[in-house]
Amino acid sequence: MTSPDPNSRTDPERSVASLAASIRPVELSAAVEARRRDQQLTKPAGSLGRIEQIGFQLAAISGSAVPPLVEPAAVAVFAGDHGVHAEGVSPWPQAVTAQMVANFCAGGAAINVIGRANGLDVRVVNVGVAVPLSDHPLLVNRPVRLGTANLRFEPAMSRAEAAQAIIVGAEVATQLLADGAQCLLTGDMGIANTTPSAAVIAALLGADPARITGRGTGIDDPTLARKITVVTEALRRLETDNHDGPLGLLAQVGGLEIAALAGFCLAGAAARVPVIIDGVIAVAGALTACSLQPLTVAYLIAGHRSVEPAASAALEHLGLAPLLELDLRLGEGTGAALAYPLVRAAARLMREMATFDQAGVDSH
Amino acid sequence: MTSPDPNSRTDPERSVASLAASIRPVELSAAVEARRRDQQLTKPAGSLGRIEQIGFQLAAISGSAVPPLVEPAAVAVFAGDHGVHAEGVSPWPQAVTAQMVANFCAGGAAINVIGRANGLDVRVVNVGVAVPLSDHPLLVNRPVRLGTANLRFEPAMSRAEAAQAIIVGAEVATQLLADGAQCLLTGDMGIANTTPSAAVIAALLGADPARITGRGTGIDDPTLARKITVVTEALRRLETDNHDGPLGLLAQVGGLEIAALAGFCLAGAAARVPVIIDGVIAVAGALTACSLQPLTVAYLIAGHRSVEPAASAALEHLGLAPLLELDLRLGEGTGAALAYPLVRAAARLMREMATFDQAGVDSH
Repeated sequence: MTSPDPNSRTDPERSVASLAASIRPVELSAAVEARRRDQQLTKPAGSLGRIEQIGFQLAAISGSAVPPLVEPAAVAVFAGDHGVHAEGVSPWPQAVTAQMVANFCAGGAAINVIGRANGLDVRVVNVGVAVPLSDHPLLVNRPVRLGTANLRFEPAMSRAEAAQAIIVGAEVATQLLADGAQCLLTGDMGIANTTPSAAVIAALLGADPARITGRGTGIDDPTLARKITVVTEALRRLETDNHDGPLGLLAQVGGLEIAALAGFCLAGAAARVPVIIDGVIAVAGALTACSLQPLTVAYLIAGHRSVEPAASAALEHLGLAPLLELDLRLGEGTGAALAYPLVRAAARLMREMATFDQAGVDSH
Repeated sequence: MTSPDPNSRTDPERSVASLAASIRPVELSAAVEARRRDQQLTKPAGSLGRIEQIGFQLAAISGSAVPPLVEPAAVAVFAGDHGVHAEGVSPWPQAVTAQMVANFCAGGAAINVIGRANGLDVRVVNVGVAVPLSDHPLLVNRPVRLGTANLRFEPAMSRAEAAQAIIVGAEVATQLLADGAQCLLTGDMGIANTTPSAAVIAALLGADPARITGRGTGIDDPTLARKITVVTEALRRLETDNHDGPLGLLAQVGGLEIAALAGFCLAGAAARVPVIIDGVIAVAGALTACSLQPLTVAYLIAGHRSVEPAASAALEHLGLAPLLELDLRLGEGTGAALAYPLVRAAARLMREMATFDQAGVDSH
């Protein structure tokens, strides 16, 4: 695998490289100081388990032993369609992607309900639905193309399109941060999108597609067998082609929303804010982001463990332990949104708890 | 084990029996109808995993296929002290119980912070701290006695006192419901209270104390060995004495806050509202409640899996799968309070999601 001649790079490719290069390491000294300070708070040290660990991570991300609140927070739901849908990898009609975008805009989907319950701003982004979508006040309409090509037989998109989709994701993140978000959550919608997610994760991990590919929203055995065949054939093409790094891999077997999610993670890391990732689609995007810039992983919080095997494999590879294990497989950002109150509480605890001295409580 | 002559029962014992007898089964038909209705909501059926299951449980509890919201909700933190503290089972001074009650009233403890983050009313109840506590607007001051006796050598309290503490817990629940709570969360504070919790759970499950007894807030090996000895000796006394059912068992080896938590669970079940239980102290109370009235269990939601082995053993016995597994071991109701947004989201999803027909989304 060789890098392309820099002079041949498109503008979006240069923007992606520049974004990835702008990410700095988190500040571990702030986490160490946060941990020292945590021992003065009125509870046995360590008694809040994983919640404390999240607090220390927030300290490292922000560079402050008393990290800022993660409120308000916003979830971006990136929608895209997939040419591989033609292979019968999902029982759902492709039209459902656009229909669900309308449902998000009308506030009737699961992510809307959970978003309202947990105080999240929900932003819907068309990064590549198969049909043109009408503008809507709640829709960020930024299609890079009208769905991908069929990754079983040909590249899902061009390198330039993959880079463009990454930039769309990054720009959405930047806009949400400009609007006040202190924490970003990933969401996705795209019928058949667990297929490119499995392909991206299998390729980046060098894993067996049969072990990685899952049942998505719930497919039967024959459909699963077909899906594994499709992913296997797509990966075989990668072995012979020179796919030129993560961007080439995304172009060959990825999806537009996966690319956008990668950009969203990169931009969150560049801005030093925590990014709570959702299920297998988000994990594919996050893994791609970490391939482009490994420093990204320290800014990521895994919201939940999807039932998709590819998600667990990639999270383990990234060293991310999910906060929730609730057998979720919906996507839309629902798992990230359900996990958000845990992160919010972690930040508040670091800021608002009394110390032993302040409260007049004996230590031991 | 024989039941005591009803004519010899004290008034609080009769109240407990009457409360337990008032609990009705949940309505499974409402859960079935909720599940049927859930299949019309704009998501693949089953894709929200455990969250959907909680929704169906809420339907059964309320008797309505579209269950009411669980907002607002309240957590009661029952505080009590333990004579067994003299055995050196905790590194923390007993005075910390009263000091933490003051911290709760001042709003500086972890449960206060999480409660504020998640919109919970936090109520503090003195059901038996070792020293008299001054009245405070945020304290329900209902001590049954000034801490328990040392359960290693003698009954922790009398049957009548155990029943009184149960009634205090029930009355607090009833008051919170009268104040508008639609969901109850259990909390506790009491230095050394993992020792009586282990004893109660070991006795009710017939389990080996060495397998059940844990490290509480974090004790070293010699302290753990001492704690196991104490629990073992207390249980040996139970084998020879006639402890007259769950109430007698509570009196022998329990704690005042454990008894109050049992009453709190019973009253929640009697009022047909969900009760989210916290860690091992709450589980000991809940298990006692379920011994007094097995129908109670269907009203309980396990907020999290405490690191205490007794908690897992009792939850498995009750068939309750915890929502969170975050290595928490603080108590105060923190695990229940952290889990509350999941239950809140489950209720909202059942009520607020659009159906396929409403949203114009194709099904398959």
